[in-house]
Amino acid sequence: MTLSINEERFLEDFNALAQIGATGDGGVNRPVFSEAHLAARKWFGEHAAEAGLEVHVDGAGNHSALLRQEGAGKSLLLGSHLDSVPNGGRFDGALGVVSALEVLRTIDESGLELPVNLEAIDFTDEESSLIQFMGSHALLGLLTPAILRSPQGGRTALLEGLNRAGLTEVGLLSSRRDPDTIAGYLELHIEQSQRLQSAGVHIGIVTGIVGISSFRLSFYGRADHSGTTPMEARADAGLGASSFVIASRDIIMRQFPDCVANVGNMEFRPGVMNVVPKQVNVLLEIRSVDGERLNGLKSTLIDQAHNDAKRFDLDLEVITLGESEPATMSPPVQTAIRSSAEALGLRHMSMSSGAGHDAQLLSGITPTGMIFVPSIGGVSHSPLEFTEWEDCINGANVLLGATLRLMRKE
Amino acid sequence: MTLSINEERFLEDFNALAQIGATGDGGVNRPVFSEAHLAARKWFGEHAAEAGLEVHVDGAGNHSALLRQEGAGKSLLLGSHLDSVPNGGRFDGALGVVSALEVLRTIDESGLELPVNLEAIDFTDEESSLIQFMGSHALLGLLTPAILRSPQGGRTALLEGLNRAGLTEVGLLSSRRDPDTIAGYLELHIEQSQRLQSAGVHIGIVTGIVGISSFRLSFYGRADHSGTTPMEARADAGLGASSFVIASRDIIMRQFPDCVANVGNMEFRPGVMNVVPKQVNVLLEIRSVDGERLNGLKSTLIDQAHNDAKRFDLDLEVITLGESEPATMSPPVQTAIRSSAEALGLRHMSMSSGAGHDAQLLSGITPTGMIFVPSIGGVSHSPLEFTEWEDCINGANVLLGATLRLMRKE
Repeated sequence: MTLSINEERFLEDFNALAQIGATGDGGVNRPVFSEAHLAARKWFGEHAAEAGLEVHVDGAGNHSALLRQEGAGKSLLLGSHLDSVPNGGRFDGALGVVSALEVLRTIDESGLELPVNLEAIDFTDEESSLIQFMGSHALLGLLTPAILRSPQGGRTALLEGLNRAGLTEVGLLSSRRDPDTIAGYLELHIEQSQRLQSAGVHIGIVTGIVGISSFRLSFYGRADHSGTTPMEARADAGLGASSFVIASRDIIMRQFPDCVANVGNMEFRPGVMNVVPKQVNVLLEIRSVDGERLNGLKSTLIDQAHNDAKRFDLDLEVITLGESEPATMSPPVQTAIRSSAEALGLRHMSMSSGAGHDAQLLSGITPTGMIFVPSIGGVSHSPLEFTEWEDCINGANVLLGATLRLMRKE
Repeated sequence: MTLSINEERFLEDFNALAQIGATGDGGVNRPVFSEAHLAARKWFGEHAAEAGLEVHVDGAGNHSALLRQEGAGKSLLLGSHLDSVPNGGRFDGALGVVSALEVLRTIDESGLELPVNLEAIDFTDEESSLIQFMGSHALLGLLTPAILRSPQGGRTALLEGLNRAGLTEVGLLSSRRDPDTIAGYLELHIEQSQRLQSAGVHIGIVTGIVGISSFRLSFYGRADHSGTTPMEARADAGLGASSFVIASRDIIMRQFPDCVANVGNMEFRPGVMNVVPKQVNVLLEIRSVDGERLNGLKSTLIDQAHNDAKRFDLDLEVITLGESEPATMSPPVQTAIRSSAEALGLRHMSMSSGAGHDAQLLSGITPTGMIFVPSIGGVSHSPLEFTEWEDCINGANVLLGATLRLMRKE
């Protein structure tokens, strides 16, 4: 007989969690270290303890529920995250944590003897509000004092958040775990795109995760009076920035159709009606599953920005805000996911992830895989984010099946 | 003998005023109703009183120093403003107020009998931080409860400012003066452009002031995940806004070389790196001395914005923020300025003003003129704003001469 998760308990847990930080429109607002986020983590810890699991919290705040096996030296990690973007959806991250917990309970109840410990883990700040992938970076020992001094969310916000969570910088810097103690990492997540829905497929087997580079491009001109300065005498930083936005889209569409780019913000200075903008800061992010293509796109876009600056008599400053390498998911883990989906009679397809996940960091130290389930309309980071409950159950059962298959190999 | 201002006293006053709200780099920071602005107005009132002039403050906070003439029914107004843009220069506005005060004292000391009262006036909020030309609008009786309910600087800022200045909304709405009591208006101001400097000319005789229309163009798209949404499936509000910025500049340069336009700000929402912008608010301002051309430019640019929105699958909302008509300066006043400059052996030229001034409102009710003096490099609204002291003296003497010439006609 094939083992299956307890659907009713799974749904009950999912809905209980979705109430924490609920925004009333189907979404949740649980930015890292917010009261709602801390409440969700408390719920997770208490719920795991009630289920008879050991609860651990490391120096980075990563929460673990452990199904310990006597004599086992390693742990297989299943997990995701309980934080959300501001006013995000109730599936992103939460689905992976609740299903990991459910898989542990199902296996615990089955009485199976396991060669490794099973650990359901909730990573800190997957949405990277304060520090990019704070929890998994800490677990890999990759955080440094320099990162803590100028975190992307701001130093003050970081210190306030750590304080609310009862964490310390020393704790963050000393949360590394020995990779030899980790048997692998599996994560169930919503797709956040509509390829599965469009193809009518139940399960996405992730082959790789995009690398992401982000930059601040600052165009510098001159703040002149908007009424008295002839058009041809201006050095208008807004022209360089706008020209870059249009040109960068053309470059992506024509030369890099396998990559994506986003200008998420432009900040005008002084930013008032009657002064020609002397400075515009452009927030640019680029993604690709192929490291060489990502580098090629980066240098092409920066060249373009220099051309746009020159064209409008501006100076340009380029600051790299973040860089993560593309990650490849472990082929044996992909095979375990595929076999599990097939055993359940589910349609599956291989696909890359355009979104970043903690799995991209874990893949550097342990065999790692991700399971995607369909997102209706591809909507994510929004209260409208939605995945059919049946798809959530399918995903959790594939997670269970892949876990069992991987353990048999240990 | 030709009457001349007292250069030493004029310089002393100018420098004393430049200390109030000084930013240490040659500039001043005196936004309307800031502590520094209120201190500058206090200085003006005390200084005028010391000179034996009557001091009046109307319900809009306009400060007047009056040289009263027995039996005179009308007042000839000379003035400008003591507020500045944030971190502005020490000449813009201040030169006109200090020279008006100096002209009154010089005439007072001369013992001349005048057919009208002379009034040095400091208008409130010429820089239009809270309400466009608040002081002159109030003096003309053009403020309405609707304007006070949604002022361009925000309702809260307006109420806080009025409170700091000891003013009330009722006062603002009841500050209208009977035009029949006003004999004319003269303003000395720095040019804020470099036409005079380039031409080697001392005095600019303003023929007209540009009309200004300003708009908020809101481009609406969809907030999608920047990593998982294919480029062609996005509705990126930043593309419409950027495309409009580039296109609008081409329209100005090619079809409307006699007009200017400025996009002073763009506000992205949600404005974060990993979300496709769902909304971009573009702050657009256009200027022309010709009302028909201004209207033509307006409709051409709004058509263009609709095209840009359509091209990128966006919606567009256009909100008019402000509209002022171009103004013509009084020919007899221009003649008085010209004669005065010629009598002093100063080179002069006629020119339009690309910047707005209270004079554009006053010109609707009384013979009005403006005198420009050279701005080095055309720099204005900046601590680097500079006019040679000799040019300031020339301007004040032309203001004095024009005043005397106009009064002879009364």
